[in-house]
Amino acid sequence: MASTDKPSDSEYRSTSTPAPAPVDYFQFDVILRFLLFAASVVAVVVIVTGNQTEFLPLPQPAKFRYSPAFVYFVAAFSVCGLYSIITTLASLFAINKPSLKTKLLLHFILWDALMLGITASATGTAGGIAYLGLKGNRHVVGWNKICHVYDKFCRHVGASIAVALFGSVVMVLLIWLSAHTIYRRVPK
Amino acid sequence: MASTDKPSDSEYRSTSTPAPAPVDYFQFDVILRFLLFAASVVAVVVIVTGNQTEFLPLPQPAKFRYSPAFVYFVAAFSVCGLYSIITTLASLFAINKPSLKTKLLLHFILWDALMLGITASATGTAGGIAYLGLKGNRHVVGWNKICHVYDKFCRHVGASIAVALFGSVVMVLLIWLSAHTIYRRVPK
Repeated sequence: MASTDKPSDSEYRSTSTPAPAPVDYFQFDVILRFLLFAASVVAVVVIVTGNQTEFLPLPQPAKFRYSPAFVYFVAAFSVCGLYSIITTLASLFAINKPSLKTKLLLHFILWDALMLGITASATGTAGGIAYLGLKGNRHVVGWNKICHVYDKFCRHVGASIAVALFGSVVMVLLIWLSAHTIYRRVPK
Repeated sequence: MASTDKPSDSEYRSTSTPAPAPVDYFQFDVILRFLLFAASVVAVVVIVTGNQTEFLPLPQPAKFRYSPAFVYFVAAFSVCGLYSIITTLASLFAINKPSLKTKLLLHFILWDALMLGITASATGTAGGIAYLGLKGNRHVVGWNKICHVYDKFCRHVGASIAVALFGSVVMVLLIWLSAHTIYRRVPK
């Protein structure tokens, strides 16, 4: 009895395993969205705490809010952090509800694409100004580098942009993951 | 005979129309990709032709290649223009091949997301520097506005960034269209 049961059991397993997808991509989704949340929070905190005052000889502070580029950067990644909390919760909520998943994934792609546009452009904007502060532009009179004076401020800005770049890459990965998961459900 | 055929014919039509998708989303795809191509070409041409020399009193030229931000912008949108030609051709090629479409759409989403990251960050980078040129930054000694001198150059840069922003929005729409088209093929 046991010997006849065994093959049918393994046969049942081998036919049933490809269908319900043994790897749940929503787990990766939750992990990536948590990484995105962490990256957003770190990026915002690091750039906000970079304020530095130099005496040359009058006190001249450097603050992120003195540059519209950095204000846009902080605003974009604050929104991104909030967005990643909401979508992480939505993703966790959907793990045990297979019927919801496909529709949720479509909405994830739509919103992720929009947020990718916002965060990538914010990273680019802050990066452009930070590069000018680091290197200056010798073709424009007066656009000199300032990072040899405001060293701490520039370190904070640079680290923040690096983390933000990581966050933007995570967002591209999220779109890839969602698109691939939807694609696997289309009958071939 | 004709009267008995009619209802069955209309019945056949009414059941067959929802399945093969009467609207072919690949037509929109081709149109959007052509718009992206046009936007990329216009953005690159307009910023490249913006060179201007002012005599103050020595001749001081303003060229896009004097700023790393604008060089990145031109490089990104040149790549984007090339990419849009290739994907327009792929999309045209796939219009009459339904079996290819779903796999192609997945690849479109993957590459479009990557290109969106590149073009959005390039638009942001150029926009940040252009805004500094337009308004200056009174908190940093020497970072003065230059657009009241280089008026033609700044007009070209501004127009180019506006067109590039339009191109980035088109790219978000392309991701939405591809995601939605794949989603419609998943059995509910």
